Amino acid sequence: MRIDIITILPELMKSPFEASIIKRAQEKNQVEIHFHTPRDFTNNVHKTIDDKPYGGMAGMVMMPEPLSLLIESLLEKRSYDKIIYLTPDGEPLKQKRANSLSLCQNLMLICGHYKGIDQRIRDLYVNLEISIGDYVLTGGELAACVLVDTIVRLIPGVIGNETSALTDSFQDGLLAPPIYTRPEVFKGLEVPKVLLSGNFEKIEAWNFQMSQQRTQERRPDLLDEFD
Amino acid sequence: MRIDIITILPELMKSPFEASIIKRAQEKNQVEIHFHTPRDFTNNVHKTIDDKPYGGMAGMVMMPEPLSLLIESLLEKRSYDKIIYLTPDGEPLKQKRANSLSLCQNLMLICGHYKGIDQRIRDLYVNLEISIGDYVLTGGELAACVLVDTIVRLIPGVIGNETSALTDSFQDGLLAPPIYTRPEVFKGLEVPKVLLSGNFEKIEAWNFQMSQQRTQERRPDLLDEFD
Repeated sequence: MRIDIITILPELMKSPFEASIIKRAQEKNQVEIHFHTPRDFTNNVHKTIDDKPYGGMAGMVMMPEPLSLLIESLLEKRSYDKIIYLTPDGEPLKQKRANSLSLCQNLMLICGHYKGIDQRIRDLYVNLEISIGDYVLTGGELAACVLVDTIVRLIPGVIGNETSALTDSFQDGLLAPPIYTRPEVFKGLEVPKVLLSGNFEKIEAWNFQMSQQRTQERRPDLLDEFD
Repeated sequence: MRIDIITILPELMKSPFEASIIKRAQEKNQVEIHFHTPRDFTNNVHKTIDDKPYGGMAGMVMMPEPLSLLIESLLEKRSYDKIIYLTPDGEPLKQKRANSLSLCQNLMLICGHYKGIDQRIRDLYVNLEISIGDYVLTGGELAACVLVDTIVRLIPGVIGNETSALTDSFQDGLLAPPIYTRPEVFKGLEVPKVLLSGNFEKIEAWNFQMSQQRTQERRPDLLDEFD
């Protein structure tokens, strides 16, 4: 997979891609990540990429021209399965969407900054708008990091033990059960006996029951979704 | 505000805190961010911090002892408004929660990795569990970055223009209206006439109408929540 990320702050996104699983996925050529900045596509000496919004509102807006030139320069080189804009009013990101995006070849991600990008860039180029949650961030950069992380870990071979990803929360519409490791007793709290039983059938049944119970208590909305 | 972040991968979280608004907020002493790793609290030569889960499931679990020692060393020095564990089965993060957390003095954030932390650490110390969305990440580090970003930008004085934060999506339960900047015509697409009118009353009415319309089309669930 190839991911092109458009951002005015590539330096903000450096370390998340230079550590852990995403780093190894790049080293193993399972994913290629490229950064591009609209500043390289400005035609003014100050390399300005933002301007005041029409209508007199507070904040600044990313100008359409530099973005458009950058996007078209990428489109000339290859086609993209999706051109994604990270925005609070986008489709809320769910595990299912991450699953389907992990099958793509080329993705383009656009990070907004300030109050966002000019609406016409969205109308002209973007074919998927994603929100990582109902809250506001300084910019789209962290949202893009989150999206890339959720996608890349699902590419086959990226996580060592594939069973591990399949037993994550949300893959079956349920939250994960509680987990424990040694010691058996910690500060007076014991590991549930069933987990020490060695009886896999019982353990699976317990895990499933805990998953259901936790989902019912914390996120009954997830159960409705799957009905 | 002081934020203590517990993570086995502090290097992953470096760049998001060294750029843009979060960087300036630290320089202006509006927020102090400290990283701590449970590896410094292991009593084995290999500084191991993970172990196999009881019950034979796939993946690894963060051991309770090093985390407990680290958390208690922090609790000896100060009290915390909240000890937060970032986890997919936590309370879904919403703007309201970010608003209230932005008023805290001391926050402790625990980032899980692998399959997460031993349940007993959650039972013993954690008093708020937060999920940034219904998807699974490689670890809690990016979730912590997201949470810190949403909180810190709300600390008074961090964003230059405070009006800007108040007109963000979600602050009034509605998505933001479309925004435009120069030029008036871009690739044949015109800026809506009302935004050029100079009539602020009309502009505000249009913005409100667009916000409502966009919310109705994309996220009718938000309208229900606010009813």
